[in-house]
Amino acid sequence: MNTADLGLPVAVPSTALFTDHYELTMLQAALNGGTADRRSVFEVFTRRLPDGRRYGVVAGTGRVLDAVENFRFDGAVLDFLREKNVVDGRTLDWLADYRFSGDIWGYPEGEVYFPGSPIMRVEGSFAECVLLETVILSILNHDSAIAAAASRMSSAAGDRPLIEMGARRTHELAAVAAARAAYLGGFTSTSDLAAGFRYNIPTVGTSAHAFTLVHDSERDAFRAQVDSLGGGTTLLVDTYDVAEAVRAAVEVAGPELGAVRIDSGDLLLVAHRVRQQLDELGATGTRILVTSDLDEYAIASLAAAPVDAYGVGTQLVTGSGHPTASMVYKLVARAESTDPKAPLVPVAKRSTGGKTSVGGRKWAARRLDGDGVAEAEVVGTGQVPDALADRQLLVELVKGGEVTATAREPLDVLRERHRAARAELPLSATQLSRGEPVIPTEYACEGSGS
Amino acid sequence: MNTADLGLPVAVPSTALFTDHYELTMLQAALNGGTADRRSVFEVFTRRLPDGRRYGVVAGTGRVLDAVENFRFDGAVLDFLREKNVVDGRTLDWLADYRFSGDIWGYPEGEVYFPGSPIMRVEGSFAECVLLETVILSILNHDSAIAAAASRMSSAAGDRPLIEMGARRTHELAAVAAARAAYLGGFTSTSDLAAGFRYNIPTVGTSAHAFTLVHDSERDAFRAQVDSLGGGTTLLVDTYDVAEAVRAAVEVAGPELGAVRIDSGDLLLVAHRVRQQLDELGATGTRILVTSDLDEYAIASLAAAPVDAYGVGTQLVTGSGHPTASMVYKLVARAESTDPKAPLVPVAKRSTGGKTSVGGRKWAARRLDGDGVAEAEVVGTGQVPDALADRQLLVELVKGGEVTATAREPLDVLRERHRAARAELPLSATQLSRGEPVIPTEYACEGSGS
Repeated sequence: MNTADLGLPVAVPSTALFTDHYELTMLQAALNGGTADRRSVFEVFTRRLPDGRRYGVVAGTGRVLDAVENFRFDGAVLDFLREKNVVDGRTLDWLADYRFSGDIWGYPEGEVYFPGSPIMRVEGSFAECVLLETVILSILNHDSAIAAAASRMSSAAGDRPLIEMGARRTHELAAVAAARAAYLGGFTSTSDLAAGFRYNIPTVGTSAHAFTLVHDSERDAFRAQVDSLGGGTTLLVDTYDVAEAVRAAVEVAGPELGAVRIDSGDLLLVAHRVRQQLDELGATGTRILVTSDLDEYAIASLAAAPVDAYGVGTQLVTGSGHPTASMVYKLVARAESTDPKAPLVPVAKRSTGGKTSVGGRKWAARRLDGDGVAEAEVVGTGQVPDALADRQLLVELVKGGEVTATAREPLDVLRERHRAARAELPLSATQLSRGEPVIPTEYACEGSGS
Repeated sequence: MNTADLGLPVAVPSTALFTDHYELTMLQAALNGGTADRRSVFEVFTRRLPDGRRYGVVAGTGRVLDAVENFRFDGAVLDFLREKNVVDGRTLDWLADYRFSGDIWGYPEGEVYFPGSPIMRVEGSFAECVLLETVILSILNHDSAIAAAASRMSSAAGDRPLIEMGARRTHELAAVAAARAAYLGGFTSTSDLAAGFRYNIPTVGTSAHAFTLVHDSERDAFRAQVDSLGGGTTLLVDTYDVAEAVRAAVEVAGPELGAVRIDSGDLLLVAHRVRQQLDELGATGTRILVTSDLDEYAIASLAAAPVDAYGVGTQLVTGSGHPTASMVYKLVARAESTDPKAPLVPVAKRSTGGKTSVGGRKWAARRLDGDGVAEAEVVGTGQVPDALADRQLLVELVKGGEVTATAREPLDVLRERHRAARAELPLSATQLSRGEPVIPTEYACEGSGS
């Protein structure tokens, strides 16, 4: 068990209740009806990217591993399920012994994905796999949505640092996961101490208008901050009059002042004015940090402005218009019978109302052109073509219920993987304008000749 | 301490790390500079409602009380702050003894709010109040956003039950808070077992396409479900062909079948067809549950359809386009000096770049017209006019650091308060079309003659 790793400052005794009621009633019916032990393959994928987005970013895999490891039904949970008559006694007995014993493969965290990419594949008995649907989707849908927004913002920001400061705009624990996803997507630091504590992400801070306002004058506030935190601190200069504040800031801190923060107004205009004023005051090394409802478009629009760093809150933690990915967890194949040697049969919803999917246990590979640029996401069943064998995307994460030795990776590795995966996409991947997925998804299914 | 109450299945040792780095550096500078002890008043308010919304819904207050009670800096947290050089030793010593000792007043949870409503007022020393900014905003911004969407959906649904099933579309713990906010806003039940466990919200479930697909035939699946869960269960009828599935469902379960669920396609059309077919098969009491990317508009469009209940996921947990409220936590007044008897001075940011606010410690009241319909949100400083004295909105939540006896309320009370508050608004409050706040906010500030 690894409970302390689930998202401090929180110790989670079990993740088993992060589950929809119907997973348990399906389990009961399957145990009763004899299908519970059928070997099954579930896959996580999305039918489409958010409108206009050109690629998705896999994030949350590491948190999924923690959640699967800690998915146990302890006494308090079983008492609750019994008291509320959620499931029958036989099912409760089965749950008491629950421990995922199957296999999980998935895109490595930080990879990019496209419609139809089998982002995660969970294999085991129907019973043990169906229970994991809700918690796996919660984590991947949330974290991937944030990482996708972060990735766009980081490509818009270029080499300028991005500070994640959205904790106040989302659920207090979602904020911790969001800071993690943001770092993976290219952010440099976070304001959220819990994220620093849990994931060792660098934390930074400036000061708020309240700090200025609690003092008798802005100059008093600056002096108090510089006296305590040193001249390298960041002074907030838009409480009263920006030009006066900049003058006071440099007078108080000297031309070695670390940075000023602008949090309102026409950032483009104000940044130019502040830069000019700082330079005239000799504070040529003083950086300008801007914050104020920034998103990737606002960041891009400031590319030519004398801005040294961006702080992003609301739009980061809400996925810049797309606060959730639309990943689903679907049964794609299951054994013909409960015989452990029974062959797998591909299955898929087939009604005419949309939401159809492609059956069968899948592999995926990214095909590159002669210049090493990605040209297609190839998703197939059966044998992987030789030409794609070394470009396969799925890696083993859990084997026989145990997280594999290589599955847990440091956040910096995920961040670098994302940077590299994005760099391999066609250049139009990082255009902010609305477009189609930057590479097509091709299906190479068994018997289709591919 | 009440750690077990913070959002099970999670025990939270402390909420103190749900804090932005800058709160602590401001604290250090204030301790050093002598302003830390100035009596201060912070208020939570929003400058505007989400675009087109007519009212907001206060949610999360109960969770804020838990968070404030558990806001302590324990050894592990202090070690982290020391190791990372977040603040100096004097500040760490101060934090080790931290315990909020001030007063908190707020709109009662479930109330509606408008631009400028002082939703929560936190009063104490600058140091003790500034630290609570991030966690208070995280909770209120998230929960209120969800509750506002839930309220619109519940007025669109009328008397038909609404099931919250969005856990898979948001962070696993945000989902628990979302289920709570949804119930407050008028939802009937949730799919999220953690929310049932933590908040005693009724949980319900149907079954997924995977359950049908793991069986050799849809009929086998229906039989397994009915055998195990009884004829009152809800059968999912859109895996293959809806008409065949409905026929099979009634054959297997008999005309006493509880409900069928439709999760794809043109819900209006399909619901009519399924109702007709069910009636022809004698299953006149079998209910129809629809789910499939519903929002308040889709729910409203089904008002005339033979639908008996709605399941809502994505759009509920993402606030139906507005995943966060835009509440801020601002210093509005502070003492002239650290003398405990020093008078309070109103303060406010005054730069020209927007984001200005109204200074002063505020009261709020909702004025009704002669018919008992709300006509204005009146926000003022100084003395409350006699005519509004019994319509005041702020209630005492924390006194001298202790949660008051009446501050913690059962969820059903909050839910009923919301229903009543919404019912008191002008009828146009529940129009789904975009509009202005349904009542204006009037300011009656000291010395302005009101």
